[in-house]
Amino acid sequence: MTTEAEATPRGLAIICYSGELEKTWAAMILASTAAAMGMPTKVFVTFWGLQTFVKPEKRVTGKNWMQKMLSIMSRPGIAHRKLSKMNFLGMGPWMMFQLAKQYGVSKPAELLEAAAAMGVEFVPCQMTMDMFGLTREDLIDGMGEPVGAATYLSYVAEGSAPIFI
Amino acid sequence: MTTEAEATPRGLAIICYSGELEKTWAAMILASTAAAMGMPTKVFVTFWGLQTFVKPEKRVTGKNWMQKMLSIMSRPGIAHRKLSKMNFLGMGPWMMFQLAKQYGVSKPAELLEAAAAMGVEFVPCQMTMDMFGLTREDLIDGMGEPVGAATYLSYVAEGSAPIFI
Amino acid sequence: MTTEAEATPRGLAIICYSGELEKTWAAMILASTAAAMGMPTKVFVTFWGLQTFVKPEKRVTGKNWMQKMLSIMSRPGIAHRKLSKMNFLGMGPWMMFQLAKQYGVSKPAELLEAAAAMGVEFVPCQMTMDMFGLTREDLIDGMGEPVGAATYLSYVAEGSAPIFI
Repeated sequence: MTTEAEATPRGLAIICYSGELEKTWAAMILASTAAAMGMPTKVFVTFWGLQTFVKPEKRVTGKNWMQKMLSIMSRPGIAHRKLSKMNFLGMGPWMMFQLAKQYGVSKPAELLEAAAAMGVEFVPCQMTMDMFGLTREDLIDGMGEPVGAATYLSYVAEGSAPIFI
Repeated sequence: MTTEAEATPRGLAIICYSGELEKTWAAMILASTAAAMGMPTKVFVTFWGLQTFVKPEKRVTGKNWMQKMLSIMSRPGIAHRKLSKMNFLGMGPWMMFQLAKQYGVSKPAELLEAAAAMGVEFVPCQMTMDMFGLTREDLIDGMGEPVGAATYLSYVAEGSAPIFI
Repeated sequence: MTTEAEATPRGLAIICYSGELEKTWAAMILASTAAAMGMPTKVFVTFWGLQTFVKPEKRVTGKNWMQKMLSIMSRPGIAHRKLSKMNFLGMGPWMMFQLAKQYGVSKPAELLEAAAAMGVEFVPCQMTMDMFGLTREDLIDGMGEPVGAATYLSYVAEGSAPIFI
Protein backbone atom coordinates (compact mmCIF):
# COMPACT_ATOMS: atom_id res chain seq x y z
CA MET A 1 0.00 0.00 0.00
CA THR A 2 3.03 2.28 0.27
CA THR A 3 6.03 1.29 -1.87
CA GLU A 4 3.94 -0.12 -4.68
CA ALA A 5 1.52 2.81 -4.61
CA GLU A 6 4.43 5.22 -4.88
CA ALA A 7 5.78 3.36 -7.90
CA THR A 8 2.51 3.26 -9.86
CA PRO A 9 -0.24 5.47 -8.45
CA ARG A 10 -3.63 3.84 -8.23
CA GLY A 11 -5.98 4.52 -11.11
CA LEU A 12 -9.33 6.24 -10.90
CA ALA A 13 -12.30 4.98 -12.94
CA ILE A 14 -15.14 7.49 -12.84
CA ILE A 15 -18.60 6.73 -14.20
CA CYS A 16 -19.99 10.06 -15.36
CA TYR A 17 -23.65 9.05 -15.28
CA SER A 18 -25.55 12.19 -14.30
CA GLY A 19 -26.19 15.10 -16.62
CA GLU A 20 -26.81 17.56 -13.78
CA LEU A 21 -24.66 20.68 -13.55
CA GLU A 22 -23.36 20.13 -10.05
CA LYS A 23 -22.55 16.44 -10.53
CA THR A 24 -20.82 17.19 -13.85
CA TRP A 25 -18.79 19.73 -11.90
CA ALA A 26 -17.90 17.15 -9.21
CA ALA A 27 -16.83 14.64 -11.86
CA MET A 28 -14.64 17.19 -13.65
CA ILE A 29 -13.01 18.39 -10.42
CA LEU A 30 -12.14 14.82 -9.40
CA ALA A 31 -10.91 13.87 -12.89
CA SER A 32 -8.71 16.94 -13.36
CA THR A 33 -7.32 16.80 -9.81
CA ALA A 34 -6.56 13.09 -10.09
CA ALA A 35 -4.74 13.68 -13.38
CA ALA A 36 -2.73 16.51 -11.83
CA MET A 37 -1.72 14.10 -9.06
CA GLY A 38 -0.51 11.55 -11.58
CA MET A 39 -3.34 9.06 -11.06
CA PRO A 40 -4.20 7.33 -14.36
CA THR A 41 -7.79 8.47 -14.81
CA LYS A 42 -10.56 7.24 -17.05
CA VAL A 43 -14.07 8.63 -17.27
CA PHE A 44 -16.74 6.30 -18.62
CA VAL A 45 -19.46 8.61 -19.93
CA THR A 46 -22.89 7.06 -19.94
CA PHE A 47 -26.64 7.73 -19.95
CA TRP A 48 -27.55 11.36 -19.11
CA GLY A 49 -23.82 12.05 -18.69
CA LEU A 50 -23.17 11.48 -22.37
CA GLN A 51 -25.38 14.44 -23.28
CA THR A 52 -22.84 16.63 -21.53
CA PHE A 53 -20.21 15.64 -24.08
CA VAL A 54 -22.22 16.57 -27.17
CA LYS A 55 -20.63 19.41 -29.21
CA PRO A 56 -21.99 22.79 -28.10
CA GLU A 57 -23.22 23.72 -31.59
CA LYS A 58 -25.46 20.62 -31.82
CA ARG A 59 -29.05 21.49 -30.95
CA VAL A 60 -31.00 18.35 -31.89
CA THR A 61 -29.43 14.91 -31.93
CA GLY A 62 -30.77 11.44 -32.76
CA LYS A 63 -31.98 9.48 -35.75
CA ASN A 64 -35.64 8.80 -34.99
CA TRP A 65 -38.37 10.99 -33.48
CA MET A 66 -38.01 9.55 -29.98
CA GLN A 67 -34.28 10.27 -29.88
CA LYS A 68 -34.82 13.75 -31.33
CA MET A 69 -37.48 14.44 -28.71
CA LEU A 70 -35.15 13.39 -25.90
CA SER A 71 -32.52 15.89 -27.08
CA ILE A 72 -35.14 18.62 -27.41
CA MET A 73 -36.51 18.05 -23.91
CA SER A 74 -33.05 18.09 -22.40
CA ARG A 75 -30.65 20.26 -24.37
CA PRO A 76 -27.23 18.59 -24.76
CA GLY A 77 -23.80 20.22 -24.22
CA ILE A 78 -21.73 21.08 -21.18
CA ALA A 79 -22.94 24.70 -21.19
CA HIS A 80 -26.57 23.67 -20.80
CA ARG A 81 -26.47 21.49 -17.66
CA LYS A 82 -29.13 22.28 -15.08
CA LEU A 83 -28.98 22.13 -11.31
CA SER A 84 -30.81 19.17 -9.76
CA LYS A 85 -32.71 21.65 -7.61
CA MET A 86 -33.08 25.43 -7.39
CA ASN A 87 -32.63 25.71 -11.14
CA PHE A 88 -35.22 28.53 -11.32
CA LEU A 89 -35.24 28.68 -15.13
CA GLY A 90 -31.50 29.15 -15.23
CA MET A 91 -31.04 31.60 -12.37
CA GLY A 92 -29.54 28.93 -10.08
CA PRO A 93 -26.77 28.01 -12.55
CA TRP A 94 -26.14 31.71 -13.27
CA MET A 95 -25.62 32.36 -9.54
CA MET A 96 -23.34 29.33 -9.29
CA PHE A 97 -21.22 30.58 -12.17
CA GLN A 98 -21.08 34.08 -10.65
CA LEU A 99 -19.92 32.62 -7.33
CA ALA A 100 -17.43 30.32 -9.06
CA LYS A 101 -15.95 33.29 -10.93
CA GLN A 102 -15.74 35.36 -7.78
CA TYR A 103 -13.88 32.61 -5.91
CA GLY A 104 -11.65 31.47 -8.75
CA VAL A 105 -13.32 28.11 -9.32
CA SER A 106 -13.06 26.81 -12.88
CA LYS A 107 -16.25 26.03 -14.81
CA PRO A 108 -16.97 22.42 -15.84
CA ALA A 109 -16.01 23.17 -19.48
CA GLU A 110 -12.61 24.54 -18.42
CA LEU A 111 -11.99 21.59 -16.10
CA LEU A 112 -12.89 19.16 -18.89
CA GLU A 113 -10.33 20.84 -21.16
CA ALA A 114 -7.68 20.75 -18.44
CA ALA A 115 -8.42 17.12 -17.62
CA ALA A 116 -8.14 16.07 -21.27
CA ALA A 117 -4.87 18.02 -21.62
CA MET A 118 -3.47 16.14 -18.61
CA GLY A 119 -4.29 12.79 -20.14
CA VAL A 120 -7.69 11.87 -18.71
CA GLU A 121 -9.41 9.47 -21.11
CA PHE A 122 -13.10 10.18 -21.72
CA VAL A 123 -14.72 7.02 -23.03
CA PRO A 124 -18.31 7.09 -24.35
CA CYS A 125 -20.70 4.22 -23.61
CA GLN A 126 -21.66 2.43 -26.83
CA MET A 127 -25.08 1.37 -25.55
CA THR A 128 -26.01 4.94 -24.64
CA MET A 129 -24.89 6.16 -28.08
CA ASP A 130 -27.16 3.55 -29.67
CA MET A 131 -30.16 4.35 -27.49
CA PHE A 132 -29.88 8.11 -27.86
CA GLY A 133 -28.91 7.86 -31.54
CA LEU A 134 -25.63 9.70 -31.00
CA THR A 135 -22.77 9.43 -33.49
CA ARG A 136 -19.08 10.04 -32.79
CA GLU A 137 -19.45 13.18 -34.88
CA ASP A 138 -22.02 14.50 -32.36
CA LEU A 139 -19.49 14.24 -29.52
CA ILE A 140 -16.74 16.71 -28.69
CA ASP A 141 -13.30 16.04 -30.12
CA GLY A 142 -10.72 13.96 -28.31
CA MET A 143 -13.01 11.32 -26.84
CA GLY A 144 -11.98 7.67 -26.96
CA GLU A 145 -13.57 4.79 -28.86
CA PRO A 146 -17.07 3.89 -27.62
CA VAL A 147 -16.92 0.87 -25.31
CA GLY A 148 -19.25 -1.23 -23.17
CA ALA A 149 -19.60 -1.83 -19.45
CA ALA A 150 -17.13 -4.72 -19.68
CA THR A 151 -14.31 -2.36 -20.63
CA TYR A 152 -15.15 -0.09 -17.72
CA LEU A 153 -15.24 -3.03 -15.31
CA SER A 154 -11.87 -4.24 -16.58
CA TYR A 155 -10.34 -1.00 -15.20
CA VAL A 156 -11.89 -1.84 -11.82
CA ALA A 157 -10.81 -5.48 -12.00
CA GLU A 158 -7.24 -4.27 -12.57
CA GLY A 159 -7.36 -2.21 -9.37
CA SER A 160 -8.65 1.22 -10.32
CA ALA A 161 -10.98 2.80 -7.77
CA PRO A 162 -14.53 3.21 -9.11
CA ILE A 163 -16.57 6.34 -8.46
CA PHE A 164 -20.15 6.53 -9.74
CA ILE A 165 -21.33 10.13 -10.08
CA MET B 1 -2.02 -6.42 -10.06
CA THR B 2 -1.81 -8.84 -13.00
CA THR B 3 -0.98 -12.41 -11.90
CA GLU B 4 -2.95 -12.15 -8.71
CA ALA B 5 -5.88 -10.48 -10.42
CA GLU B 6 -5.97 -13.29 -12.98
CA ALA B 7 -6.01 -15.88 -10.19
CA THR B 8 -8.91 -14.40 -8.21
CA PRO B 9 -10.71 -11.57 -9.98
CA ARG B 10 -11.58 -8.64 -7.79
CA GLY B 11 -15.07 -8.60 -6.36
CA LEU B 12 -17.71 -5.95 -6.99
CA ALA B 13 -19.96 -4.76 -4.16
CA ILE B 14 -22.81 -2.67 -5.55
CA ILE B 15 -25.18 -0.71 -3.32
CA CYS B 16 -28.48 -0.60 -5.21
CA TYR B 17 -29.91 2.41 -3.40
CA SER B 18 -32.02 4.25 -5.96
CA GLY B 19 -35.42 3.09 -7.14
CA GLU B 20 -35.26 5.11 -10.39
CA LEU B 21 -35.60 3.29 -13.68
CA GLU B 22 -32.35 4.45 -15.21
CA LYS B 23 -30.23 3.82 -12.12
CA THR B 24 -31.79 0.39 -11.68
CA TRP B 25 -30.78 -0.21 -15.27
CA ALA B 26 -27.21 0.91 -14.62
CA ALA B 27 -26.95 -1.33 -11.55
CA MET B 28 -28.26 -4.36 -13.45
CA ILE B 29 -25.93 -3.76 -16.41
CA LEU B 30 -22.89 -3.53 -14.13
CA ALA B 31 -23.94 -6.57 -12.05
CA SER B 32 -24.66 -8.83 -15.01
CA THR B 33 -21.56 -7.74 -16.94
CA ALA B 34 -19.33 -8.23 -13.89
CA ALA B 35 -20.77 -11.71 -13.35
CA ALA B 36 -20.18 -12.58 -17.01
CA MET B 37 -16.55 -11.46 -16.56
CA GLY B 38 -16.16 -13.77 -13.54
CA MET B 39 -16.02 -11.02 -10.95
CA PRO B 40 -17.67 -12.20 -7.69
CA THR B 41 -20.55 -9.74 -7.46
CA LYS B 42 -22.86 -8.85 -4.61
CA VAL B 43 -25.67 -6.32 -4.72
CA PHE B 44 -26.76 -4.84 -1.39
CA VAL B 45 -30.33 -3.70 -1.97
CA THR B 46 -31.37 -0.86 0.27
CA PHE B 47 -33.83 2.04 0.73
CA TRP B 48 -35.74 2.93 -2.48
CA GLY B 49 -33.79 0.21 -4.26
CA LEU B 50 -35.48 -2.51 -2.25
CA GLN B 51 -38.86 -1.56 -3.68
CA THR B 52 -37.51 -2.68 -7.06
CA PHE B 53 -37.17 -6.22 -5.72
CA VAL B 54 -40.75 -6.60 -4.51
CA LYS B 55 -42.69 -9.35 -6.38
CA PRO B 56 -44.56 -7.88 -9.37
CA GLU B 57 -47.96 -9.12 -8.17
CA LYS B 58 -47.67 -7.26 -4.84
CA ARG B 59 -49.57 -4.00 -4.99
CA VAL B 60 -49.55 -2.76 -1.40
CA THR B 61 -46.86 -3.72 1.10
CA GLY B 62 -46.27 -2.86 4.75
CA LYS B 63 -47.80 -3.59 8.12
CA ASN B 64 -48.96 -0.19 9.34
CA TRP B 65 -50.69 2.69 7.56
CA MET B 66 -47.49 4.68 7.01
CA GLN B 67 -45.75 1.74 5.35
CA LYS B 68 -48.82 0.99 3.25
CA MET B 69 -49.02 4.62 2.19
CA LEU B 70 -45.37 4.61 1.10
CA SER B 71 -46.01 1.61 -1.17
CA ILE B 72 -49.14 3.22 -2.58
CA MET B 73 -47.34 6.49 -3.38
CA SER B 74 -44.47 4.69 -5.08
CA ARG B 75 -45.59 1.41 -6.62
CA PRO B 76 -43.06 -1.37 -5.98
CA GLY B 77 -41.70 -3.87 -8.54
CA ILE B 78 -39.05 -3.71 -11.26
CA ALA B 79 -41.67 -3.08 -13.98
CA HIS B 80 -42.88 0.11 -12.29
CA ARG B 81 -39.68 2.11 -11.97
CA LYS B 82 -39.91 5.72 -13.09
CA LEU B 83 -37.33 7.91 -14.79
CA SER B 84 -35.75 10.56 -12.53
CA LYS B 85 -36.77 13.16 -15.11
CA MET B 86 -38.85 13.26 -18.29
CA ASN B 87 -41.14 10.58 -16.87
CA PHE B 88 -44.21 12.26 -18.49
CA LEU B 89 -46.75 9.95 -16.83
CA GLY B 90 -45.00 6.89 -18.20
CA MET B 91 -44.19 8.10 -21.71
CA GLY B 92 -40.48 8.53 -20.94
CA PRO B 93 -40.03 4.93 -19.77
CA TRP B 94 -42.12 3.68 -22.72
CA MET B 95 -39.79 5.51 -25.13
CA MET B 96 -36.76 4.13 -23.33
CA PHE B 97 -38.09 0.58 -23.63
CA GLN B 98 -38.92 1.12 -27.31
CA LEU B 99 -35.38 2.35 -27.97
CA ALA B 100 -33.89 -0.47 -25.89
CA LYS B 101 -35.85 -3.04 -27.91
CA GLN B 102 -34.82 -1.44 -31.20
CA TYR B 103 -31.14 -1.52 -30.26
CA GLY B 104 -31.12 -4.95 -28.58
CA VAL B 105 -30.60 -3.68 -25.05
CA SER B 106 -32.03 -5.95 -22.33
CA LYS B 107 -34.61 -4.55 -19.90
CA PRO B 108 -33.74 -4.30 -16.20
CA ALA B 109 -35.95 -7.34 -15.38
CA GLU B 110 -34.12 -9.47 -17.96
CA LEU B 111 -30.71 -8.31 -16.73
CA LEU B 112 -31.72 -9.09 -13.15
CA GLU B 113 -32.65 -12.64 -14.18
CA ALA B 114 -29.39 -13.07 -16.11
CA ALA B 115 -27.33 -11.67 -13.24
CA ALA B 116 -28.97 -14.04 -10.73
CA ALA B 117 -28.42 -16.98 -13.09
CA MET B 118 -24.73 -16.09 -13.32
CA GLY B 119 -24.38 -16.11 -9.55
CA VAL B 120 -24.81 -12.48 -8.52
CA GLU B 121 -26.02 -12.41 -4.91
CA PHE B 122 -28.81 -9.92 -4.20
CA VAL B 123 -28.83 -9.19 -0.48
CA PRO B 124 -31.69 -7.18 1.06
CA CYS B 125 -31.01 -4.60 3.78
CA GLN B 126 -32.63 -5.68 7.06
CA MET B 127 -33.13 -2.11 8.28
CA THR B 128 -34.99 -1.10 5.11
CA MET B 129 -37.20 -4.19 5.38
CA ASP B 130 -38.07 -3.16 8.95
CA MET B 131 -38.76 0.47 8.10
CA PHE B 132 -40.88 -0.31 5.02
CA GLY B 133 -42.57 -3.28 6.68
CA LEU B 134 -41.40 -5.70 3.97
CA THR B 135 -41.25 -9.45 4.59
CA ARG B 136 -39.08 -11.95 2.74
CA GLU B 137 -42.31 -13.24 1.17
CA ASP B 138 -42.83 -9.78 -0.40
CA LEU B 139 -39.48 -9.99 -2.20
CA ILE B 140 -38.76 -11.85 -5.44
CA ASP B 141 -37.42 -15.39 -5.15
CA GLY B 142 -33.73 -16.15 -4.95
CA MET B 143 -32.62 -13.22 -2.78
CA GLY B 144 -30.17 -13.80 0.05
CA GLU B 145 -30.74 -13.49 3.79
CA PRO B 146 -31.38 -9.89 4.93
CA VAL B 147 -28.21 -8.33 6.33
CA GLY B 148 -26.99 -5.03 7.74
CA ALA B 149 -24.49 -2.43 6.59
CA ALA B 150 -21.72 -4.27 8.46
CA THR B 151 -22.05 -7.28 6.15
CA TYR B 152 -21.87 -5.02 3.11
CA LEU B 153 -18.81 -3.24 4.47
CA SER B 154 -17.11 -6.58 5.16
CA TYR B 155 -17.12 -7.19 1.38
CA VAL B 156 -15.37 -3.85 0.91
CA ALA B 157 -12.93 -4.50 3.77
CA GLU B 158 -11.98 -7.77 2.04
CA GLY B 159 -11.10 -5.90 -1.14
CA SER B 160 -14.26 -5.74 -3.24
CA ALA B 161 -14.76 -2.48 -5.12
CA PRO B 162 -17.80 -0.52 -3.86
CA ILE B 163 -20.18 1.23 -6.24
CA PHE B 164 -23.08 3.25 -4.82
CA ILE B 165 -25.87 3.68 -7.38
CA MET C 1 -6.28 -9.79 1.17
CA THR C 2 -6.56 -11.78 4.40
CA THR C 3 -3.52 -11.45 6.68
CA GLU C 4 -2.76 -7.91 5.63
CA ALA C 5 -6.41 -6.84 5.82
CA GLU C 6 -6.60 -8.26 9.35
CA ALA C 7 -3.53 -6.28 10.36
CA THR C 8 -4.67 -2.91 9.00
CA PRO C 9 -8.32 -2.83 7.94
CA ARG C 10 -8.98 -1.08 4.67
CA GLY C 11 -10.00 2.54 4.92
CA LEU C 12 -13.28 4.01 3.70
CA ALA C 13 -13.36 7.40 1.99
CA ILE C 14 -16.94 8.64 1.66
CA ILE C 15 -17.86 11.71 -0.37
CA CYS C 16 -20.93 13.15 1.31
CA TYR C 17 -22.19 15.13 -1.65
CA SER C 18 -25.98 15.05 -1.43
CA GLY C 19 -27.99 17.10 1.02
CA GLU C 20 -31.06 14.84 0.81
CA LEU C 21 -32.37 13.26 3.97
CA GLU C 22 -32.19 9.66 2.85
CA LYS C 23 -28.71 9.94 1.33
CA THR C 24 -27.44 11.74 4.43
CA TRP C 25 -28.85 8.79 6.35
CA ALA C 26 -27.07 6.28 4.12
CA ALA C 27 -23.76 8.13 4.48
CA MET C 28 -24.08 8.27 8.29
CA ILE C 29 -25.01 4.57 8.55
CA LEU C 30 -22.00 3.56 6.44
CA ALA C 31 -19.62 5.90 8.29
CA SER C 32 -20.70 4.86 11.80
CA THR C 33 -20.80 1.14 10.93
CA ALA C 34 -17.36 1.28 9.30
CA ALA C 35 -15.94 3.03 12.35
CA ALA C 36 -17.50 0.41 14.64
CA MET C 37 -15.79 -2.25 12.50
CA GLY C 38 -12.44 -0.55 12.90
CA MET C 39 -12.15 0.70 9.33
CA PRO C 40 -10.36 4.09 9.27
CA THR C 41 -13.12 6.28 7.87
CA LYS C 42 -13.06 9.76 6.43
CA VAL C 43 -16.02 11.71 5.12
CA PHE C 44 -15.28 14.47 2.63
CA VAL C 45 -18.23 16.83 2.90
CA THR C 46 -18.92 18.80 -0.23
CA PHE C 47 -21.52 20.75 -2.22
CA TRP C 48 -25.11 20.24 -0.94
CA GLY C 49 -23.72 17.83 1.65
CA LEU C 50 -21.90 20.63 3.44
CA GLN C 51 -25.20 22.33 4.26
CA THR C 52 -26.01 19.30 6.41
CA PHE C 53 -23.05 20.14 8.65
CA VAL C 54 -24.05 23.72 9.40
CA LYS C 55 -24.85 24.34 13.08
CA PRO C 56 -28.59 23.86 13.77
CA GLU C 57 -29.04 27.37 15.19
CA LYS C 58 -27.75 29.03 11.99
CA ARG C 59 -30.64 30.13 9.82
CA VAL C 60 -29.01 32.22 7.10
CA THR C 61 -25.41 31.71 6.00
CA GLY C 62 -23.22 33.41 3.42
CA LYS C 63 -21.52 36.73 2.86
CA ASN C 64 -23.21 38.11 -0.24
CA TRP C 65 -26.86 38.11 -1.36
CA MET C 66 -26.49 35.11 -3.64
CA GLN C 67 -25.01 32.97 -0.89
CA LYS C 68 -27.64 34.16 1.58
CA MET C 69 -30.38 33.36 -0.91
CA LEU C 70 -29.05 29.84 -1.41
CA SER C 71 -29.23 29.21 2.34
CA ILE C 72 -32.74 30.64 2.53
CA MET C 73 -34.02 28.48 -0.33
CA SER C 74 -32.55 25.34 1.19
CA ARG C 75 -32.39 25.57 4.97
CA PRO C 76 -29.10 24.20 6.31
CA GLY C 77 -28.63 21.79 9.24
CA ILE C 78 -28.99 18.03 9.64
CA ALA C 79 -32.49 18.38 11.11
CA HIS C 80 -33.80 20.10 7.97
CA ARG C 81 -32.90 17.60 5.25
CA LYS C 82 -35.71 16.80 2.81
CA LEU C 83 -36.53 13.54 1.07
CA SER C 84 -35.64 13.45 -2.64
CA LYS C 85 -39.24 12.45 -3.31
CA MET C 86 -42.47 12.15 -1.34
CA ASN C 87 -41.42 15.04 0.85
CA PHE C 88 -45.03 16.32 1.03
CA LEU C 89 -44.15 19.54 2.88
CA GLY C 90 -42.40 17.59 5.61
CA MET C 91 -44.85 14.72 6.05
CA GLY C 92 -42.53 12.21 4.30
CA PRO C 93 -39.60 12.91 6.65
CA TRP C 94 -41.98 12.86 9.65
CA MET C 95 -43.20 9.41 8.65
CA MET C 96 -39.63 8.22 8.12
CA PHE C 97 -38.65 9.39 11.61
CA GLN C 98 -41.76 7.75 13.11
CA LEU C 99 -40.88 4.46 11.41
CA ALA C 100 -37.22 4.77 12.39
CA LYS C 101 -38.21 5.32 16.03
CA GLN C 102 -40.59 2.37 15.95
CA TYR C 103 -37.90 0.05 14.57
CA GLY C 104 -35.01 1.33 16.64
CA VAL C 105 -33.13 2.99 13.77
CA SER C 106 -30.98 5.96 14.81
CA LYS C 107 -31.61 9.34 13.20
CA PRO C 108 -28.88 10.91 11.01
CA ALA C 109 -27.95 13.40 13.78
CA GLU C 110 -27.44 10.56 16.28
CA LEU C 111 -25.41 8.53 13.80
CA LEU C 112 -23.24 11.57 13.07
CA GLU C 113 -22.52 11.98 16.77
CA ALA C 114 -21.74 8.26 17.15
CA ALA C 115 -19.51 8.28 14.08
CA ALA C 116 -17.54 11.29 15.32
CA ALA C 117 -17.17 9.67 18.76
CA MET C 118 -15.76 6.55 17.11
CA GLY C 119 -13.14 8.56 15.25
CA VAL C 120 -14.66 9.24 11.85
CA GLU C 121 -13.07 12.38 10.41
CA PHE C 122 -15.48 14.80 8.76
CA VAL C 123 -13.54 17.02 6.40
CA PRO C 124 -15.20 20.06 4.77
CA CYS C 125 -14.46 20.97 1.16
CA GLN C 126 -12.69 24.33 0.96
CA MET C 127 -14.09 25.16 -2.45
CA THR C 128 -17.68 24.61 -1.31
CA MET C 129 -17.07 26.78 1.76
CA ASP C 130 -15.83 29.55 -0.53
CA MET C 131 -18.71 29.28 -3.00
CA PHE C 132 -21.43 29.11 -0.33
CA GLY C 133 -19.70 31.72 1.85
CA LEU C 134 -19.49 29.34 4.83
CA THR C 135 -17.00 29.92 7.65
CA ARG C 136 -15.64 27.29 10.03
CA GLU C 137 -17.74 28.98 12.71
CA ASP C 138 -20.88 28.14 10.70
CA LEU C 139 -20.07 24.42 10.81
CA ILE C 140 -20.73 22.03 13.69
CA ASP C 141 -17.90 21.47 16.16
CA GLY C 142 -15.34 18.74 15.68
CA MET C 143 -14.91 18.95 11.92
CA GLY C 144 -11.44 18.79 10.39
CA GLU C 145 -9.52 21.49 8.53
CA PRO C 146 -11.09 22.40 5.16
CA VAL C 147 -9.26 20.63 2.33
CA GLY C 148 -9.48 20.26 -1.43
CA ALA C 149 -10.23 17.37 -3.78
CA ALA C 150 -6.52 16.47 -3.85
CA THR C 151 -6.57 15.58 -0.16
CA TYR C 152 -9.62 13.39 -0.67
CA LEU C 153 -8.01 11.66 -3.64
CA SER C 154 -4.85 11.01 -1.64
CA TYR C 155 -6.94 8.76 0.67
CA VAL C 156 -8.06 6.82 -2.40
CA ALA C 157 -4.55 6.69 -3.85
CA GLU C 158 -3.37 5.17 -0.56
CA GLY C 159 -5.93 2.37 -0.89
CA SER C 160 -9.10 3.58 0.81
CA ALA C 161 -12.33 2.55 -0.90
CA PRO C 162 -14.23 5.54 -2.30
CA ILE C 163 -18.01 5.83 -2.00
CA PHE C 164 -19.79 8.82 -3.57
CA ILE C 165 -23.20 9.41 -1.96
